[in-house]
Amino acid sequence: MKIVFLGAGNLAFHLSLALQNAGHDIVQVYSRTLKSANELANKLNSKATNNVSQITENTDLYIIAVSDDAIQPVIDKLNITNKNIVHTAGSIPMDILQSANNYGVFYPLQTFSKNSTLDFAEIPICVESNNETFKKTLLDLAKQISGSVWYISSEERIYLHLAAVFVCNFVNHLYSLTEELIGDKNIDFKILHPLIKETVNKAVAISPKLAQTGPALRNDKKTIEKHTNLLISRPDLGKIYQMISDSIQTFHNSEK
Amino acid sequence: MKIVFLGAGNLAFHLSLALQNAGHDIVQVYSRTLKSANELANKLNSKATNNVSQITENTDLYIIAVSDDAIQPVIDKLNITNKNIVHTAGSIPMDILQSANNYGVFYPLQTFSKNSTLDFAEIPICVESNNETFKKTLLDLAKQISGSVWYISSEERIYLHLAAVFVCNFVNHLYSLTEELIGDKNIDFKILHPLIKETVNKAVAISPKLAQTGPALRNDKKTIEKHTNLLISRPDLGKIYQMISDSIQTFHNSEK
Repeated sequence: MKIVFLGAGNLAFHLSLALQNAGHDIVQVYSRTLKSANELANKLNSKATNNVSQITENTDLYIIAVSDDAIQPVIDKLNITNKNIVHTAGSIPMDILQSANNYGVFYPLQTFSKNSTLDFAEIPICVESNNETFKKTLLDLAKQISGSVWYISSEERIYLHLAAVFVCNFVNHLYSLTEELIGDKNIDFKILHPLIKETVNKAVAISPKLAQTGPALRNDKKTIEKHTNLLISRPDLGKIYQMISDSIQTFHNSEK
Repeated sequence: MKIVFLGAGNLAFHLSLALQNAGHDIVQVYSRTLKSANELANKLNSKATNNVSQITENTDLYIIAVSDDAIQPVIDKLNITNKNIVHTAGSIPMDILQSANNYGVFYPLQTFSKNSTLDFAEIPICVESNNETFKKTLLDLAKQISGSVWYISSEERIYLHLAAVFVCNFVNHLYSLTEELIGDKNIDFKILHPLIKETVNKAVAISPKLAQTGPALRNDKKTIEKHTNLLISRPDLGKIYQMISDSIQTFHNSEK
């Protein structure tokens, strides 16, 4: 398949390389800044452009992998009517592309950064499409690079995107707050790495509901009071502590 | 070293087996319930008791590994004056044992459950002691079973215990809430496993502060509004969403 990439960021970087490795031809990379387009195009032995009017016509697939706010401007400049086109965004409905004949979504559910290597085979790809033929094309393409392919509607996908914020962005922020909290006591965050890893292992192996432990679950008021006192000088952390502890108790009591 | 274990729960189970594997002799296991004491004692080829007055005298080391609230009652019943004794609790000060000559803390910083196998070599052990000789004994013992041994004061340890609540209990609860949220849309939590694992990999590899991504960090108001609207029917999750998003913005703006 001949593919044009619109976007040259972290997602475009990983996805375009995975598709090339699967035997597809990335014929052109577009980015607003020519430097970014060139950087990725060089890796792919492809052509670069920062001019929408120079984007190759009659290619098998156009993949939009720009930031959410840049999707509509790209569509506005490109004549998409007769194109096969997808975007890759978690929180943007498929219908933003509805002026095309064949359109859809190709959303890899992962956090990407250029300097970390990822095995695309394990990354879930959420596919959506406006018709059955194009759906099959996209599912086949996804299965060539990933062992975890899902058909997900726009409504489901926005929930998934919200879920990703909780388990990725929010979890990571709890790590940041904790690193700062013990850093103030000159304790190296590394001491928590094994606990952090084992917490994830257990949640994945036996489900988080069954893996839950801690003072809030046990309603261990003495420990909760000690922790609350430690956080008097950090009311922001104190509020988070109380809110999540309350949520743990509500969640697990209503389950009983 | 001849060692008596007071307690037969998850921590006692893993720690006693690790010490036995390192060549030590677990001579006796005490638990309030004889069944639990027997269960662990059988695994260790050791003796069991549920009667404090039958606990062996003149052993090299007594390790208290009962729940926090049960530590004081055990101490009250045992004559600890001439004993070498430690407890294993994260949030209990060392001085609860101050009527002994040689006392301290031996706190493995990990989440334990009986049915998951753990490599003790990677579990950080936080040691504290009331004198230099016993400190050396405990550090040597810890180094026999773990490659990560730290001398941590009671004040530091309570902060570490609080930190563990954030990165283990609270993180796991965010997973539980998320599993429920997408479960209501019939989406399998498994689809998030690769993202969950990669989030931890990045935080551990490059530090959580540098790994932070997401709509709150980008101040992407459109996406935050979409997510907030999705959570109108779940005000509890809506509050957590807003509080952590605000915290992300405060944390990263004050860093700039």
